[in-house]
Order: sequence, then structure tokens, then C-alpha cells
Amino acid sequence: MKLHQNKAPMGWNSYDYYDTTVNEAQVKANADYMAAHLKDAGWEYVVVDIQWYAGDAGTMRDRYQYIPFGETEMDGYGRLLPDVKRFPSSAGGRGFGPLADYVHGLGLKFGIHIMRGIPRSAAHRHLPILGSEVTADQAADPSSICGWNPDMYGLRKDMEGSQKYYDSIINMYADWGVDYIKCDDICNTNLYPNNPYSGAHEVEMLYTAIQKSGRDIVLSLSPGPALIEKAWHYEKYANMWRITDDFWDRWDLLRNMFDRCELWQNHVAPGAYPDCDMLPLGKLGGGFGNGEWDTHFTKEEQITMMTLWCVFGSPLMAGAELTKLDDWTLWLLTRKDILKLVSNDYVGRQYEKNRDYAIWSCLNACTEERYLAFFNFREEPLQIFCSVEEVEQFAGRTSGIRKAAELWSGADREVTEGVLTDWVPAHGARLFVLQED
Amino acid sequence: MKLHQNKAPMGWNSYDYYDTTVNEAQVKANADYMAAHLKDAGWEYVVVDIQWYAGDAGTMRDRYQYIPFGETEMDGYGRLLPDVKRFPSSAGGRGFGPLADYVHGLGLKFGIHIMRGIPRSAAHRHLPILGSEVTADQAADPSSICGWNPDMYGLRKDMEGSQKYYDSIINMYADWGVDYIKCDDICNTNLYPNNPYSGAHEVEMLYTAIQKSGRDIVLSLSPGPALIEKAWHYEKYANMWRITDDFWDRWDLLRNMFDRCELWQNHVAPGAYPDCDMLPLGKLGGGFGNGEWDTHFTKEEQITMMTLWCVFGSPLMAGAELTKLDDWTLWLLTRKDILKLVSNDYVGRQYEKNRDYAIWSCLNACTEERYLAFFNFREEPLQIFCSVEEVEQFAGRTSGIRKAAELWSGADREVTEGVLTDWVPAHGARLFVLQED
Amino acid sequence: MKLHQNKAPMGWNSYDYYDTTVNEAQVKANADYMAAHLKDAGWEYVVVDIQWYAGDAGTMRDRYQYIPFGETEMDGYGRLLPDVKRFPSSAGGRGFGPLADYVHGLGLKFGIHIMRGIPRSAAHRHLPILGSEVTADQAADPSSICGWNPDMYGLRKDMEGSQKYYDSIINMYADWGVDYIKCDDICNTNLYPNNPYSGAHEVEMLYTAIQKSGRDIVLSLSPGPALIEKAWHYEKYANMWRITDDFWDRWDLLRNMFDRCELWQNHVAPGAYPDCDMLPLGKLGGGFGNGEWDTHFTKEEQITMMTLWCVFGSPLMAGAELTKLDDWTLWLLTRKDILKLVSNDYVGRQYEKNRDYAIWSCLNACTEERYLAFFNFREEPLQIFCSVEEVEQFAGRTSGIRKAAELWSGADREVTEGVLTDWVPAHGARLFVLQED
Amino acid sequence: MKLHQNKAPMGWNSYDYYDTTVNEAQVKANADYMAAHLKDAGWEYVVVDIQWYAGDAGTMRDRYQYIPFGETEMDGYGRLLPDVKRFPSSAGGRGFGPLADYVHGLGLKFGIHIMRGIPRSAAHRHLPILGSEVTADQAADPSSICGWNPDMYGLRKDMEGSQKYYDSIINMYADWGVDYIKCDDICNTNLYPNNPYSGAHEVEMLYTAIQKSGRDIVLSLSPGPALIEKAWHYEKYANMWRITDDFWDRWDLLRNMFDRCELWQNHVAPGAYPDCDMLPLGKLGGGFGNGEWDTHFTKEEQITMMTLWCVFGSPLMAGAELTKLDDWTLWLLTRKDILKLVSNDYVGRQYEKNRDYAIWSCLNACTEERYLAFFNFREEPLQIFCSVEEVEQFAGRTSGIRKAAELWSGADREVTEGVLTDWVPAHGARLFVLQED
Repeated sequence: MKLHQNKAPMGWNSYDYYDTTVNEAQVKANADYMAAHLKDAGWEYVVVDIQWYAGDAGTMRDRYQYIPFGETEMDGYGRLLPDVKRFPSSAGGRGFGPLADYVHGLGLKFGIHIMRGIPRSAAHRHLPILGSEVTADQAADPSSICGWNPDMYGLRKDMEGSQKYYDSIINMYADWGVDYIKCDDICNTNLYPNNPYSGAHEVEMLYTAIQKSGRDIVLSLSPGPALIEKAWHYEKYANMWRITDDFWDRWDLLRNMFDRCELWQNHVAPGAYPDCDMLPLGKLGGGFGNGEWDTHFTKEEQITMMTLWCVFGSPLMAGAELTKLDDWTLWLLTRKDILKLVSNDYVGRQYEKNRDYAIWSCLNACTEERYLAFFNFREEPLQIFCSVEEVEQFAGRTSGIRKAAELWSGADREVTEGVLTDWVPAHGARLFVLQED
Repeated sequence: MKLHQNKAPMGWNSYDYYDTTVNEAQVKANADYMAAHLKDAGWEYVVVDIQWYAGDAGTMRDRYQYIPFGETEMDGYGRLLPDVKRFPSSAGGRGFGPLADYVHGLGLKFGIHIMRGIPRSAAHRHLPILGSEVTADQAADPSSICGWNPDMYGLRKDMEGSQKYYDSIINMYADWGVDYIKCDDICNTNLYPNNPYSGAHEVEMLYTAIQKSGRDIVLSLSPGPALIEKAWHYEKYANMWRITDDFWDRWDLLRNMFDRCELWQNHVAPGAYPDCDMLPLGKLGGGFGNGEWDTHFTKEEQITMMTLWCVFGSPLMAGAELTKLDDWTLWLLTRKDILKLVSNDYVGRQYEKNRDYAIWSCLNACTEERYLAFFNFREEPLQIFCSVEEVEQFAGRTSGIRKAAELWSGADREVTEGVLTDWVPAHGARLFVLQED
Repeated sequence: MKLHQNKAPMGWNSYDYYDTTVNEAQVKANADYMAAHLKDAGWEYVVVDIQWYAGDAGTMRDRYQYIPFGETEMDGYGRLLPDVKRFPSSAGGRGFGPLADYVHGLGLKFGIHIMRGIPRSAAHRHLPILGSEVTADQAADPSSICGWNPDMYGLRKDMEGSQKYYDSIINMYADWGVDYIKCDDICNTNLYPNNPYSGAHEVEMLYTAIQKSGRDIVLSLSPGPALIEKAWHYEKYANMWRITDDFWDRWDLLRNMFDRCELWQNHVAPGAYPDCDMLPLGKLGGGFGNGEWDTHFTKEEQITMMTLWCVFGSPLMAGAELTKLDDWTLWLLTRKDILKLVSNDYVGRQYEKNRDYAIWSCLNACTEERYLAFFNFREEPLQIFCSVEEVEQFAGRTSGIRKAAELWSGADREVTEGVLTDWVPAHGARLFVLQED
Repeated sequence: MKLHQNKAPMGWNSYDYYDTTVNEAQVKANADYMAAHLKDAGWEYVVVDIQWYAGDAGTMRDRYQYIPFGETEMDGYGRLLPDVKRFPSSAGGRGFGPLADYVHGLGLKFGIHIMRGIPRSAAHRHLPILGSEVTADQAADPSSICGWNPDMYGLRKDMEGSQKYYDSIINMYADWGVDYIKCDDICNTNLYPNNPYSGAHEVEMLYTAIQKSGRDIVLSLSPGPALIEKAWHYEKYANMWRITDDFWDRWDLLRNMFDRCELWQNHVAPGAYPDCDMLPLGKLGGGFGNGEWDTHFTKEEQITMMTLWCVFGSPLMAGAELTKLDDWTLWLLTRKDILKLVSNDYVGRQYEKNRDYAIWSCLNACTEERYLAFFNFREEPLQIFCSVEEVEQFAGRTSGIRKAAELWSGADREVTEGVLTDWVPAHGARLFVLQED
């Protein structure tokens, strides 16, 4: 079943630190840390990202991120299995079952990354598809490939064998205990100039397979930017979809996310989340071949990122190596009073955006809690003014707001003649909760 | 003040019948009819469309819809005034004041059409702008024109004189008693390939002028298609914006509206309405030079149109000559049980759309009223099935739905094993209210 | 060596009649016919088109034109060989050598079709490349595929192994005695939206391999439309390049060719020929699965086609099954007085083109022979007038032209007061040679 | 009559130095200088560029280059006349007649700049068109404007009044003695996204008017980039057309010109010249409001520019203030042995272009003179090698070339084993004449 929940997923993903190389021990260590330090603040998904089936992953990093025509684990039905060298518990055909059990044992949930389609080598070897007369070479579409990863062929539309293949892998994942599937090369395939969402039928097939599996599974689509014209389709068939290309720790990308959030803000709904991508915080990049680094974001930029992701309602997936988290980052990731805004009970809307700054409101219609976020785009501090009265009027209310507490700092601010103002640091943010008296 | 209301505007617009030629007596006759027969069902705006200031409007219809460099009424500040020959009550500089008073006297509201910008002839004559040192030639942007109408120049960005000109016209309209302004050549200017919303700053200026005027005025933007990337801007600064190019009584345009409604459904909000354009029903086209005609839509298509506009939540502006309404069309326009869905209390969402049909749900979260609409795109009758249970599940509910009443026909339908089904005529629609027992 | 000749290639190509299925006996029969009936008029190339290496070619024609992941003949270096069942003389690794010898024995030349790149299965099998340390999986670019044929991967840029692979196949073809290579999926790869000529480096590699081979080989690039922005590159590295998508016997395609010829007329040069594609005349389509047909072109349209191809200077490749040529078509293909215009000694230029008709001039600067062609685009006969004086003036001459002989019909026409006129049938053409007295 | 000549036009244009402000005395001074120092090297046209009719040209240069709705000289038929204050000899309705006479008296030719269309104020004032019943408001197309200049409306297609207006101005110019018309906003109108050559019918009208005028007049079209798809149209109806946007003294623009010349090289023909734009040499920019400057091109870049323009065959229009020419620039502009290459007797072709350098050949087929030009794109000196044998082979010759003389420096170079080589400075060029012994 496609998960129907009331809050954007929160978790950890191996990519930002490990690239293609993560192994079982590393996954467990991050899961342990999450259970001990982050679970209480709402973090729950532990996700193994790309290339877990590749025996040679990371061995030619100077030339390839994804080695073409390399070694992969695969069963007789063309279903990829974890590389046993990196995931020893998968030996004997147990797949990710034991690792999922381990994660579940910590009270957490387990996720994996997959590529759209069927392995190219399964097609070239004419492998059978489980439960179908059709063979891999017949279901594979030889002209449907991923532009950046050489592993798969897309599956043909309107072909029973294609659905059967997706059924066969989703059932296997459900058996393993997978709670979250991040499917790549599908949200924006970039393949055909006039049809960048050319895998739309495969999204429907994945959805159907998940519905039939009987297990609650989050379906997350990558990479972005998702196509706003297809918003209804993403929303109907998936739980999350990436609204940007890969996000990293650069201000220009963070600044750009305000444009993406403006575009997608009306599409956050229970069980359906436009996805701003992983949070590149703490230690990053250990597996990328040039040594790990500390996030290039300033502390103010980190606060801006956390504030935007929360008021917008994006999924939150930490990219940091958790076992190396410093106190500051841990504090940032455990502010329950702020993280609660990713719940669908809180509706975020951009109130203003110009060259210099943005203002968002966030409202809980039931509890009448009201928040305002200020964001400074400039390279120097900026005093931002906001007429709380107009915001309220805009939302169809009469305001009685008199005070505001800034959540990150704990500072109080008066609302004078209906106007809230504060100095905001360069690239920084303020998040206020408004109070009537 | 930009109107903040909880229901899409409903009214009559002179264009579909009169083209550029409507006169005072005709406007009054339609207003009289509306007061007598439609007001009770929620219809209230009477809107005078394009070219009311043109002395020669309609006189060269075989060659021009809009005569270039023709006669216009204008005051000394470059503000266009009604053509006194067609609108005698405007004599003596009273503008639309007397006509607005007449409409108000019927318990209705009064609207007019304007073109973005300042008259070209005001710029060529270097006329002063009221309340500004700047003259028309300085505020006018000679490279900002409308592609299809020769009357105006757009106003420059970041220039005090531009805002002053908009202030001067909006204040005059407010003095006249105007309740609704349909501004044309502004929603999609089609002017610059890379900036089809090149008049965005003029939308902000109109909004500012309306806010300052102190009068509640609906701001409606044309023509479409509006740009989904600019949704936030339309929603913040206007009340309505056209999501299609001119809509007329052709099935292909009606079919296309399902795509537009899919795209814009998440953007219907109190005071903010994506606009599907006028309803081409009844008698049309009397002023277009080739004689009036009856709508080319079949009755089934008319039901489809009314149903879609209502469940989506579009403004409803009748295009028919009201004094010639037949019984069928009057019945169609006075179904209060259906028209109530344009209220923001009812939220419409597309549940399914494929080559053959579409299904929409419409929900009142407070009262828990639930509706389902079936639409048949085919040229022959089609039996449409819908799992009410899945719709409910999708919306996060457990269903107890057992019965459905079709509103247009009054017929009852059972919901058997969670599934509602009905035969729907070619291009036709069914609108069901769901019941728990 | 890239052929440097003074006349566009003329020959026969198996595709229009045989699709993917042509066999040795059929090739020989067509060669025999050419030698007996067409060679004297200048026809010389016999070209075996696509899929000669596929064992299952044509066996699933209802579902696939090109069967994915099918059986292919290949040597240990990943070089495709003729399917022995269809080309028995190729047995024992002799490839097309014996067939080429046969064709040469008739005084004709032999050509083959290839797809850009290296076989996908060679990459998946990690085959060695002749004369290189690099293996097929390393030289193949897994993201460079053909959109409509599943056989190959493109070869990587700036990689020694890629050039070696092209060297290895061109040397083999040269050994066989191949005189003409039609390389497909390379002139317009349609692959990357911003780089439809993404195989440009492979064109250079083919050119280099041909230069090194020491054999005169025509290099022909497909499919079109070629990119006018890349005209210099085609002209430098190839002999022919397709300026349209596949051309068939439909008037709209023929009408469109006038636009293509207008665009490319300045790019006809010795050894460099924009290619209007095969001539769909006579019996066509025998191998396409639905039975052969007679060209759908009227006789007038056939004359239009022959006239345009000749005055423009396109290569002439007959698509008809030659052994079934009727007298009319044979006459059309053996008009030596007209076919001589494909020589580079004659320069064709469009003089006029409008909605109704086109006029081309064709001039031999040495001999001062002058031709004019009239083409009627309309559905009914049209009288076309042309001021011969202006044409001459345009070309910098003073005219003494007094008479004209129409070549297809043999009719004489007077040039009166500098004007030549004639009635031209619907979709038809007239080709005049101008005379001074 | 559209001029039919065998050599690209050479002359001087007022824009690069004077912007919109040039006056009669300045034009005469430049003409005097040309007659005394440049005429002998082939320079002959003296061209008055944009805004000669504007009374306020240059008076608000900080805000506008072209003042909207400003003062203009115009006769009763909407034909613009020179501003009498700046061109005193034009008083009494004599227009540019006296100035043209002066220039002719020096043995030179006289040219002017015009904007496509009819003055906007003529349309707003409903002025008559000479020789037509149609008035300016009827012939003007109010939706056809220039994006950067506010003066004109384009003229309607298929309207007799439009042709009459062009006839009326061209006849007046012919009476004045104008030899060269640079028409702006017509080669690439940039107006309609899908039709950037929207003024094509006006090019035809100008051509027709020139043909009827009986005077030899060069028709030059601006601005660029011209559309390669329309090459035939430019070539048929005009003498010159701009292949780039405005060219100035910046290396990136000069580097880019190699791409433009590659694209257009096959379109240089007698009377038809793709135009690389003015030569920004010597003193520039005196009228642009911030003081004159010396060309920013290094001497090597100037040599590169002169060499490319000559081997390509571009028109040569000096942009420098001639009365301030230094010795170096004068030397550059009077190298008759190099300037002769702009004749159509010499055909230039790009032989090679890569990231680092380009090689062009230039051949006189009659005299068999052969040139080679080397161009270094890099920021440091580069040794360029060229196989003269291959160039010759490519051109269908057998080479006997043994020596080369570099023309700019006079240095000799040996051709060893068929290869010519030289070190070329950063951004510099070498131009060799090849010799057989």
C-alpha cells in the first residue's frame, strides 16, 4: 500500500557521505546512532542508496561513478541482490531481510534505492520474469535508458511482463521488510526532449505493485526537477518526488530552493510531499574519492535550510555521517518544536519574495498556531519588516497578534502597530511563533 | 481592497454576445434579467467588456476587431471614458457612475474591462498624469504593446508615474462604483518569448491601487493560458486569472479544459480563482458581424461544462444574451444545489483521468458532504466504474458510502461492494452526491 | 580515402523494397539488371541496407522492425558479419568479399549499411578490440544509443579504443572490397536534445579510418534531417548526408523537399552532396510485411522528383526492385540528357519559390549551358511565367536567350520579350534547356 | 536596382564613433579623409547611421539611446527628413541631396540608415501616403514594432499602401543620390518568437522599390544574427545581411565570429554578402556619452579581424573616426594586397577549426592564387601545422607548393614535406600566399 500518512518522512540516506560504497556495518552504525539520538525527535527511515548490488562499486571512482557492464548480484529472474561482500548478511539469498530486521529491531524503518527498469544484462541474457511467459528481452525497452547510469533498461508500456517484473521485485522487497523505496531515473528521466517524464507508466506500475504487496511502503521518486505540469500524477502515485536536481551544500542551490518551494507549495498534502532533497549537514563525502569534508554551509545557512524545509513541509533526510555528528548539528536536527512543522497539520505559504528576502507563514488551522519565517538572501544583515495584520487579513482573519518568539534563538519580539520586524543575518533566517498577547 | 471572499465570482459578461459593441440599454436589459431570474441562484456581477471607450467599435468588423488609431473618449489625464453615443448616461464626465448606480439599484454588482497600460495616443500627445510630474510619454514603454489590440502602451517598471496612472484610473473607477475589473493583455502577454508574464509589475501596481482605493474590487486577469510557474504571483495579487486562451463552444476546447483543471486544481483558494472563462451557452455572437447563433454545445456537453466548472471551483460568467435565455439554459444556470460547489467550502480534486474518462471528487471537510463527478470523453456512451472505497481511502477515510444520487437527473444509484457505476452519454457527465446509508 | 569525385553517386539500395530482409540472390539479381540496363546511364553502386548481420531479420515484423537482443553474426573482435543463411557466400569468414567480387565483375561498385558504434552484446561480453588493449565494454558509451535500433552502443570520444574499433571494421570492409558505406544513426542522432549531432566525433573517426584504409570509399550519413549549423562538418568529413527524414512516395514529403533543397543548395560541392534520399519509384515494399506496392507518386510527381534531385545535385539511389521495372520507370531512370545535371559542372539555384510554384536555374559555367526548371505545387495545372532576362541579370549576364526546349517532352517554347512561359500540370515539372537562337 | 557587383562593399559608418549624434560637418570631414587616404585602397561608401531625423538625438543619453515620442523632421507624406540643425544643407526640403553631392564630388558614394516601417506619429496623425489612397494608419501594423527603437510601425503585408510608402521613400532617396541603404530592425526582428524574420515581406518591398527606382543602391540589412534558414531570401533580395548581433572590440565577440563565418561561408556570392559588421578600430565611441576610447583589440587581434573579414569576404565598414586615425590603423586599412581578397574572385573556406585554432584557405580559381590563414584562439603563442598537400587534395588538386610568404609581416616560410608551419601569437593570425617554387 502506498503510505498514507500525515507527516513528511524523516530519516537518513547513505548517499551524501558514502556515494556508491556504503556497507552493512556502516548502515548499522548509522541506524544505531539514529535510534539513540534522533529517533525521539521523529527520525525513522534508514535508507541504503545507489549501487548496493554492484560488486565493483567505487573501484574506478576517478573514471566512473557507475562502472559500465560491471559485476552485479542477480537472481535467476533478473532481480538484483545486495553485493554479498559489502552486505554479508545477505548471503544465501536472504537479501536485505536480515539488515531490515536489524533496523526494525531498533524501532526504525528500512529503505533502499532502486533504478527504474530491468537490468540490461538480464535482457541480453533473455532471463525469465517471475510469474510471466515474457522474458526480460521482451519486456525491456532497449531505447529507454538512464542518461547517467548504465545498469538498466526501462520497461515497456502496456505489457503484462513489465508489471510482472515490478510485482516480482516489490514482493521480494516486501518480504525483506523494506519500508521505503527511492526509485531513481524516473521523476525526471531527461531522456526524450518532449517527454521528460517518460517513465510515468513505470511509476504507475510501481504504485500498483506496492498496492498489491499489502505492505506500507513509501515511494520516493528521483531525480528532479519534477515537472510541475505532472504534479497531479506524482501526487496520485507517489509519496515523495524530488523538486530539484541533486542538492548540495552551496548557497546558490539553497537560494534556488526558494523558487522551487514557491512553485510547489500548494502540492504538499497528506501522503504526498514535494522533496527538497537530502540535508547536506555535518560530515559529508567520505566515499566520493577525495576525502570527507564539513558542510560548506554557514550556521546561518543551515538554519535557513532547516527552516525552509520545515515550513514548506519537505521530507527531511539527513545526509551527514551520523556517527560523526557534532553538537551543533545534533542540536539542529533535534529541535522538536521546529521539526513538528513538517506535519500536514501545519500549512506553509510564501507570503512575500523579492530580490532581497522572503517571508513565509505557517498555520495550523485546528490549533490556530501561527508562524512566520523571515529569510535574508543578501550578503549582509537586513532588517525585515512584516505587517502581521496584512498576513492575517490575507488569510481571512482579524489579527490580535501582539508578540512573537523567535524559535531558534528563543528571543522575544514585540509586534508594534501590527508590524513585526527583526534584523536577519546574511543568508540567515528567523522563525517566529506568533502570540495573541 | 482586493476582495477576500469565499466563493468564486458569478455573473454575466457582454463579450460572448456583443463583441465590442454593447451599449447602455443592452447592459441594463441583461442586468434587469439577472435581477429577476438569476440573482437568487447567486449570480451578481454585470460586466461591460472591451472597447466601451471606442467611438467606432464594430464599424469595420470585416477588417478589424479593434480599429487601429481610432476615435476614443479620453480626459485630459489620458484616462479613457465611455463612448457617450453608446453610453448616454456617461455624458458630462460622469463615466460609468450612473450605470453602476442602476446596477447597484438592482442589488447587483458592476464590472468593466480594461486593457493593461496607458493609451498610445496619450503618450504621443504627451498628456499629464494626474498627481505626477511625469507625462504619459515618459511613463509609457513604447516596446510594451499588446499583440492583438492597438490601443495601449504598457507602463514602465520602477517608475512613480506608472503607479500614479494606475492610481488615477482605479480611483476614478472606485468613484464610479466599479466592483469588478477585468484587465486584459496582462495574464499572458505573449510579448517577449522569454517573459510571457511581462506585465507582472503592472499586476502589482493595479493591486496596490486597488488596496489604496478602499473599495472592494475583484481583479480579474486575462487572457490565458496563465503560467503555472507564476501561480503564486497571480494568487497573491489577483482574484481571478484565465487558465486558457479564449474559450468557445467547441468540444476540443472543453476537452482541453480537463487538462487545465488538472494543472490548476491545487490553486483554488478563498479570494483566488483560476478562471475557465465565460460559459458560451444560449444565444451567442450577435455582435460579431455574422448573426447570432445558438451554442454549438450539445446538452450533454453543457452539463459537462457546468459540472467541471463547479467541482473545480472556477468563476462562472455567463456569455449568453440573458434576455433570450431558453428554459433549458435557465434551468442549467439556476441549479442552486450544484452551483453551491463553487464555494471554497467544497474542495474539488481530480481522482482519475485517462484517454476515455475523468473522475473528480468534491468534498466539504466541515459538513462531510461528498460528491463524485464522472466525465465521458468518448463519442459514444461509456460505463464508468469508480471504487468509492479507494477514493475515500485516498482521502484518508474509511468509507461507509452505500448510495449515490445523481444531481442533474435526480436518479439514485447503489454503491455495491464499494463500487459506484453508471453509463455516461457521449461527452456527458454525471454528478453524484454520496450518502452513507 | 574519402572519395573526391565530381558527380553525386548513383545506384540502388535494397531498403525501399526489402526492408531488413534482402539476401544474396536478390542483391545479385538487382546488380545484374543494373549492369544490363542502367549502367550506361551512369548508375553504379549496389548497396545492401540494414540488418544484413541479423539472423532473425524480418521474422517478427508485426511487432518489431529491429528485434531487440536477437541473433547476430559476429567475430571475436565484436565485428558484425553477414548472416550466412541469407548470404551463403560469406561462409567461412569471407564476409561480403565474394559478393563484392561479383558486383565488381559486372563493372559496378558495392556498398553496405552500418550502424554507428559497437554491438551492445560485444560490450556486455567484454570482447577485445583488434589492435587495442581496450575492450568493448570500455570503449562503448552505455548512454549513447540509437533511439530506433537496439543493436549498438556509440563509441566514446577521445578514446584510442574507439578509433581502433572503427579502423578494424573499415579495414575489414576494405578487404572485402566495399566501395560505399552508409552509416546510420549518425547524421542526426536525435539523442540529446541540445546535441542532435552527438556522434560527430564518430564521423571523424570513420573518416580517419577510411583515409588510413587507402581504399576509395564513399561515406554516406543517415538519417536526416541533417543540421544546417553543422554543414561544414558534414562537408569536410563525409561524401553524402541526408537532409530529410526517411523519404517515401507521398506528395507532402516531396513538397517539403523543396524547402530542404532551398536550405542546402549552397552546399553541393565536388565530393560533398546533401542527400534527398532514395527514389521511391516502381515496385516498392516487398519486404515490409504487407505486400509490395507500385509507387504512389503520379507520373507528374515522378518527373518533379527526378527534376528536383537532378538540378539540385542530390545523389540518386533507386529504391525500386530493379528486376520488376516497367518501361516508364526505366525510361525515367535512363534519361542521360537529364541525369548529367547531377555533375558538379552544373550548379543549380532556386530562383523563385512561393505558395504556388518554384523555379530553379541550373548553369554550367564552362559550357554556358543554361537550364530552367518550373515546378507546380498546386492541385491543378498552372501557367508559370519566368523572366529569363531577370534570371540572367541575376547571374550577372546579359541575355540573348530566345528559345527553350523542354527536355522531358521534347517540346519547344519561344522566349518572348525575355519571358518564358508554360502550363505545368498539377504537382508536375518542366525542365527547359535555354538556347540563344 | 539592387547592386550586382563582384566585391563586398567597403566604407565608413558613423555609428561606432558618433552613436546617434553625427552631423554634417563630421560626415564631410570623414569623407574628406577617406578621399585623401583610403579611396585608393578601395574604400568608397560614407554612411550616416541611425537617428539623423531626430531633433533631440543624444540629449538624454543617460536614460535613452532613442528618445520615445521625440521631435522628428517629417514631410506631409510621413517621410522622415534630416534634422536641419545637424544637417543645415538639408534646409528647404533638400534632404540629403547636397551632402550626397558633396560626397560624390570626392569620388565616393553616399549611404544612410533607415528603420523598417513608417513613423508611429504618421500613423497616429493619419497622414496620407504618396501615390496611394491608403493613409498611414491603415498601412501601419500597430503590432509590428521594433523592440529597441520606438520610432516606427512595420508595414502590413499584402497591402498596396505599404509598397507605395516604400516606393515613396526610396524614390526620394534616389533623388537625393543615395547609393547605400542600411535598413535596421529587419534582418532579425526578434519580434515574434516563431518568426524572427517577420519583416521578410518588407525586405521584398524594399527590393521592389529599389528595382523600380532605376538607381544602383546597396541594400544592407540589420541587425543580426541573420537566420541561416532564410539564407536564400536574404541572398535574393538584399546585398548584405548582418550575421551577428552588434560587433564590438571584445575578444569573445571576435572568437564567436569564426563560428558565424563557418556557418555562412557558402553564402558569399557576387552581390550577396553575409556581413560581419563594422570594424571597431582606432578611436571609437565619442558620441556614446562617456568619452571616446581606443579600440580594446590588441594589434594581433586587429590582424585576426582584418584577415578573417577578408578571407571570408565580408563587407568592410570602418567604425573609427577617420580624422583621428593613427599610422598603424591606417596601414591596416590600406593593405591592398590583402584587401583584394574581399573580391568574389577569391573564395574562402574554413579548412579546420578546433578548440585551439582555425585554418582557412582562399583560392582564386582563375589565377590559381592560393592563400592560407592561420588563427590562434589561445591566450599564448601556438605553433600551427598545416598539410598543404591535404588542403590541395581536398580541393581536387595535386600540390606543388614549396614556399609561402606571410603577408602581414613579409616573412618567408618553407613548405617542408608538404607541411607549412608557423608560430602564431595569442589571438593572432598569419596570412600566407602559397608559391609553387
